[in-house]
Amino acid sequence: MSDLHYSSSPQFSETERTAVYRAINERRDMRHFAGGQVPEDVLLRLLRAAHHAPSVGMMQPWRFIRVQSRPMRERIHALIEQERQRTAEALGERKDEFMKLKVQGVLDAAEVLVITMPPGREAHVFGRRTLPEMDIASAACAVQNMWLAARAENLGLGWVSLFDPEALARLLQMPKGAHPLGVLCLGPVQAFYAEPMLQQEKWARRMPLQDMLMDEVWAQESSLDASALHTSK
Amino acid sequence: MSDLHYSSSPQFSETERTAVYRAINERRDMRHFAGGQVPEDVLLRLLRAAHHAPSVGMMQPWRFIRVQSRPMRERIHALIEQERQRTAEALGERKDEFMKLKVQGVLDAAEVLVITMPPGREAHVFGRRTLPEMDIASAACAVQNMWLAARAENLGLGWVSLFDPEALARLLQMPKGAHPLGVLCLGPVQAFYAEPMLQQEKWARRMPLQDMLMDEVWAQESSLDASALHTSK
Repeated sequence: MSDLHYSSSPQFSETERTAVYRAINERRDMRHFAGGQVPEDVLLRLLRAAHHAPSVGMMQPWRFIRVQSRPMRERIHALIEQERQRTAEALGERKDEFMKLKVQGVLDAAEVLVITMPPGREAHVFGRRTLPEMDIASAACAVQNMWLAARAENLGLGWVSLFDPEALARLLQMPKGAHPLGVLCLGPVQAFYAEPMLQQEKWARRMPLQDMLMDEVWAQESSLDASALHTSK
Repeated sequence: MSDLHYSSSPQFSETERTAVYRAINERRDMRHFAGGQVPEDVLLRLLRAAHHAPSVGMMQPWRFIRVQSRPMRERIHALIEQERQRTAEALGERKDEFMKLKVQGVLDAAEVLVITMPPGREAHVFGRRTLPEMDIASAACAVQNMWLAARAENLGLGWVSLFDPEALARLLQMPKGAHPLGVLCLGPVQAFYAEPMLQQEKWARRMPLQDMLMDEVWAQESSLDASALHTSK
């Protein structure tokens, strides 16, 4: 371990820190897009941000398929609509409420990127022997990087997971063992939601931070006082 | 959908955007910590950043158990050491190389936070009917938010997934159905690795971005030119 090199970057300034928190606080799962375009250099910066995510054993379990053709987008949209209906049925009493939440991004967003895990996950044991789902966690970190970078580029991103992964894999001619995790809709938006859309639509509310925290063991309340934190969106 | 409120925040400036990319590029999975402390207000800011992650159907599937006591940390460390040995055996020819990579953060880091999913995931159907792993993806986004915020606070974070989740759940007295996803080591570091530690240790290398990208379908090479992107860490 003696041959590690260290960064000589300066400390993050207060201004830089504030910008990072701003991206975290103002990132939204967008469902309304304004068409337009994402310049290729911006798109590449966002993909590069995704590719700088952490991954278990550095396995980098993410690939991105950019879908531009209208016919292919319509087929993806149809898969999503099919799953929306099935999810609505499965939700039972919240069915009508759920069906009001449209998923239009696939047709309207400037860019559609399908994130998928490549085949071969079983070859990666490092950090996954007991937690095989860690490759999914890594791919999710890649999306989160892209999401925050998109917000900083003043672009909206929505992560759609309403689809049958096997059907989407077939549609995009993926090899056996590949596993799509999301249809990412990306592009200019007229504005960002002031709060998470599902909160505005009264589907759910952000829980109090205090309720997320415990000390030492599950049942012990946290001695941290989250109410001391200044409130914000 | 007519009652959505929109944010009136100004556009992100070039300076803010650069800061977000800096956090993304300079975040590291840290294994070397310098002891010390994390002030409670900073710790709460980081936890709040995690809690501002996206989650499927806004289910917020993350809880954080802060472990301060030395005996409990030693028990967690013992679980990790046990799994390190088992992973090394499973790796076969890369065993010796793997065993050189120490995992000391649990004993040395200022803070240890165990992230776990709470029981009850099966009640959440929204966005999970066909992709049940989406709650894991959401929890991973929470960690990534905290990781980037920690970097902006000039603090290191390491995500350890080398443990038997059932044994860790028992140790921390979690209820049936809870599922720990990581032992997060957090705190001051002497410096950040200049590159990912596993790359410096020659375990793996970051793959070319171009190889991550495709157009329309799996087999079609991307028409984007990632080599046009300015290189960086």
